Amino acid sequence: MQRLLSRSSTLLRASLQCDLPAPASCSKFTPNSATRGYASIAADSSDEQHRWQLGATAAAALAAAGLASWLILEPETSLCEEAQLASAGQTQKRKPSLPEFHLEDVALHNNKERGVWVTYKDGVYDVTDFLEMHPGGASRLMLAAGGAIDPFWAMYQQHNQEEIRSLLEGYRIGTLAGGQDMSQQVADPYSNEPKRHPALVIRSQKPFNAETPAELLTGKLYTPNDLFYVRNHLPVPAVDPAAYTLRVEGEGLRTIELSLKDLRTKFKRHTISATLQCAGNRRTEMSSLKDIKGTTWASGAIGNAEWSGVNLKDVLEYAGLDDRSETEAGHVQFEGLDSDMEGVCYGASIPIEKAVYKGADVLLAYEMNGRPLSKDHGFPVRVIAPGIVGARNVKWLSRIITSKEESQSHWQQHDYKSFSPNTDYDTVDWESAPAIQEPNVTSAICDPGHNTPVSTCEGTIPVKGFAYSGGGHSVIRVDVSADDGKTWTVAELSSVPAKRSRAWSWTLWQAEVPIPRDHVGSIELICKATDNAYNTQPDSVAGVWNLRGVLNNAWHRVKVQVQEE
Amino acid sequence: MQRLLSRSSTLLRASLQCDLPAPASCSKFTPNSATRGYASIAADSSDEQHRWQLGATAAAALAAAGLASWLILEPETSLCEEAQLASAGQTQKRKPSLPEFHLEDVALHNNKERGVWVTYKDGVYDVTDFLEMHPGGASRLMLAAGGAIDPFWAMYQQHNQEEIRSLLEGYRIGTLAGGQDMSQQVADPYSNEPKRHPALVIRSQKPFNAETPAELLTGKLYTPNDLFYVRNHLPVPAVDPAAYTLRVEGEGLRTIELSLKDLRTKFKRHTISATLQCAGNRRTEMSSLKDIKGTTWASGAIGNAEWSGVNLKDVLEYAGLDDRSETEAGHVQFEGLDSDMEGVCYGASIPIEKAVYKGADVLLAYEMNGRPLSKDHGFPVRVIAPGIVGARNVKWLSRIITSKEESQSHWQQHDYKSFSPNTDYDTVDWESAPAIQEPNVTSAICDPGHNTPVSTCEGTIPVKGFAYSGGGHSVIRVDVSADDGKTWTVAELSSVPAKRSRAWSWTLWQAEVPIPRDHVGSIELICKATDNAYNTQPDSVAGVWNLRGVLNNAWHRVKVQVQEE
Repeated sequence: MQRLLSRSSTLLRASLQCDLPAPASCSKFTPNSATRGYASIAADSSDEQHRWQLGATAAAALAAAGLASWLILEPETSLCEEAQLASAGQTQKRKPSLPEFHLEDVALHNNKERGVWVTYKDGVYDVTDFLEMHPGGASRLMLAAGGAIDPFWAMYQQHNQEEIRSLLEGYRIGTLAGGQDMSQQVADPYSNEPKRHPALVIRSQKPFNAETPAELLTGKLYTPNDLFYVRNHLPVPAVDPAAYTLRVEGEGLRTIELSLKDLRTKFKRHTISATLQCAGNRRTEMSSLKDIKGTTWASGAIGNAEWSGVNLKDVLEYAGLDDRSETEAGHVQFEGLDSDMEGVCYGASIPIEKAVYKGADVLLAYEMNGRPLSKDHGFPVRVIAPGIVGARNVKWLSRIITSKEESQSHWQQHDYKSFSPNTDYDTVDWESAPAIQEPNVTSAICDPGHNTPVSTCEGTIPVKGFAYSGGGHSVIRVDVSADDGKTWTVAELSSVPAKRSRAWSWTLWQAEVPIPRDHVGSIELICKATDNAYNTQPDSVAGVWNLRGVLNNAWHRVKVQVQEE
Repeated sequence: MQRLLSRSSTLLRASLQCDLPAPASCSKFTPNSATRGYASIAADSSDEQHRWQLGATAAAALAAAGLASWLILEPETSLCEEAQLASAGQTQKRKPSLPEFHLEDVALHNNKERGVWVTYKDGVYDVTDFLEMHPGGASRLMLAAGGAIDPFWAMYQQHNQEEIRSLLEGYRIGTLAGGQDMSQQVADPYSNEPKRHPALVIRSQKPFNAETPAELLTGKLYTPNDLFYVRNHLPVPAVDPAAYTLRVEGEGLRTIELSLKDLRTKFKRHTISATLQCAGNRRTEMSSLKDIKGTTWASGAIGNAEWSGVNLKDVLEYAGLDDRSETEAGHVQFEGLDSDMEGVCYGASIPIEKAVYKGADVLLAYEMNGRPLSKDHGFPVRVIAPGIVGARNVKWLSRIITSKEESQSHWQQHDYKSFSPNTDYDTVDWESAPAIQEPNVTSAICDPGHNTPVSTCEGTIPVKGFAYSGGGHSVIRVDVSADDGKTWTVAELSSVPAKRSRAWSWTLWQAEVPIPRDHVGSIELICKATDNAYNTQPDSVAGVWNLRGVLNNAWHRVKVQVQEE
């Protein structure tokens, strides 16, 4: 691939699909997956400019090559080393022979007619031809037209990958005069993040994503606040509680604004126990099968807490929602105060019926386990939509909108969805799957941990974990096996008492599992849960693998080293 | 085992567990399952009487030996041939040397003090010692005390097995004088059954159980009435529509009685589309893995229809249900007009919240696909509880009761439940699992059928089937594979339009599935469905096997013979 990046006046449009030997590090890729898309990129270089030109499936190809992250606000797992080899030493300041431009020159190129230029560090790039291929959409890239993309990349730090810098470099047309480096002027939007508990397992710093160590999940029905997993999509917003207002508006409502004091005094306080789980929890098991873009999560992106606040139903009714308007409005959208460069805030929605039915427990919560929400968990107010996936439990809540349509946010329309195992970025039709709402039944072994030594006691080993099912379904049974499912031990369950269809909290479990007599050193423990709709977990990850790596609920497997006593 | 049946004055209490060689036909039994229980029966014979005495685990042993059917109103699959060999030639009229008794003698023995005698055909039996071991309970057997059990066995025809007749014979003390045969005087309670469509696949005649041939299920979103599967637990009751009354009573209600005319004129008519599925659908796949008692069902114990009637919520509110009483009453029980010898009617219940929430569509239906209900489907009125398993959709509805507790019927408490794969009749704790309400997500291939020849068209074969999920969940995707799950084809779906959380009807699907190039003659087709909670089907039957063989929702597999064109 090196040669594709060298300057040449020849149109080089060779498909790399055949040229590229699959490097060892790419062995996880299948032909219809990332490599095909990535390798179908062809090069068009000339004296005037050199740039990558993409084939017909370019956008999909880029997405497959890891560039979906341009918009998808998730830190990416590293792609294959091929790309890194290709771009090594070829990024900024690589081409001193290029002409110099002043900032004013760049500023003039802020439209398609004149050409769309951007700067990155000291480089100047003509990205006109890339606009339509930007996985985040041309409009988002146009926001940087005529100026620096450094602030945007500071926000979306997942751009900081060699593959993406290399791609950009293909569009380079010059260098900023006077050795200016625009990146020096960019403030880090993540400079005001709160302190976190050192025990959290950090999966990404910016935005901050961290999970609870699995062994700390069991034993307590309520997860301590500072150990509760954190899933941020953007920098944590600084909110002045005195100035905070929550705007409520939309289909069938009069627009109202509520202060924190209004929320605390105008509405009855409710407390519920509810589990939150990131849709990506247990993603690593999927990515170990076949590469996946998305935050790496083991099984600790889940937690249970007691939440206090006001009932969303009460607030909506206060704003005028009645039977008629409820019927007309199909959804309740939530917007957070966390927003990007362009002012686009995090957003999601739930079906309105989940918010307003008798017994609906959707809260606008201001307390978590009896304490005010922390900054990481949505201070001062967040949505707690029990039984619904974490992504819809919007933090730092600023706006509630009843509407006919669900949220049009990226996270509702193009992210938290699952597809068939054979669907990948080059074939995905985002509209073909519904936004995840109620998550499926799942469970995981938390103790013992992977590859840990365990001692047997009279031929059994103690195993602990959690189980959970969305939509208010209770977990009715957890089976644990040490012999690949030939025999199962029924675990002892422990959970917060709940009404049948309002089991919002997880179930913790423990079992003394007989180990097979003929084991040789290590054994694999397996658990699977069944909920009260008798849904259970599928046996293998392969059958539920999906390009976003969400809702992996295959049997959970942990290999341990058995030490005889 | 022959010797156990011979008369002897010696107390013979040898455990047969070691004596019995496992016959080839018993190979499906596992040690902790039926054989262990069956073999632990010991014999106690004397000059006065000879009878079986059962060990400590006798009731469980009997259940394991197939005798649970004494109460469980399901025809049984045949047990191992060992039992048949043991009893061959040893049933009625086998012991002419026994004393003769008159009916009056028998009638005097109708209590424990004098002894409990019954007659069967021309035999007289002292079942005093068996009372507490009767799997259906002593009280039910006491109903026949001092008289003939023939009418009871005519009702519960699953008693008509060699094993059970053999067991009874062990209690024989004499013969009826004058060669009377009480069975001649028993009217067949099934003599007034309706005519059925010849295409139905009959699984049991008395009670009548029959499924739709799978290939007739696809293609039509609504299953024709006379091809709709029939699941009866008792004889079909003859109901005079002019005299029909529905009694409504219970927690928070004034007792009312409604005629058919009342139902049609006092309440608004509602029509919904809803799928009914027997909890035992797809049981054969489970029983092929390990023996299961229960009606044999392939995949045709499911159907979809348009039902018309009145809303249960309206009727309950008419009877006085309000918010307070709804909170106090946790369940709505239903009783059918189908009853047994003792007047015990079929009964079931659903959680009251499923009946009364806004949008609840539970109907008291009097029409099916635009026509009055047929006799087999509950004429004149049945419950249609959409999204809930067939067994709670009580036919020939006679009584509705709101109550704090769920139905205490056998079918609610001791039948339609599922357990861990390692739980069998000798270890089951019926209370440890909830009654099935909303069934899990499932699907099946209906066309092509098992072991049928299929022609390929450009390397693909057309595959059709159904998919369904309980609780109003919609099916969002069906994946089909012809290479053991290595690759999946996403099927095209077809369903009755429904609101998100009220998808009561199944989804039909079809796919053109590429067959692997290296197939050799036959291939196995697999399908799996995913619902909008992203629950999906488990890969293997083994992980969901349960002693009642209910809710098998493993990947459905059909082997076909490929014919090249």
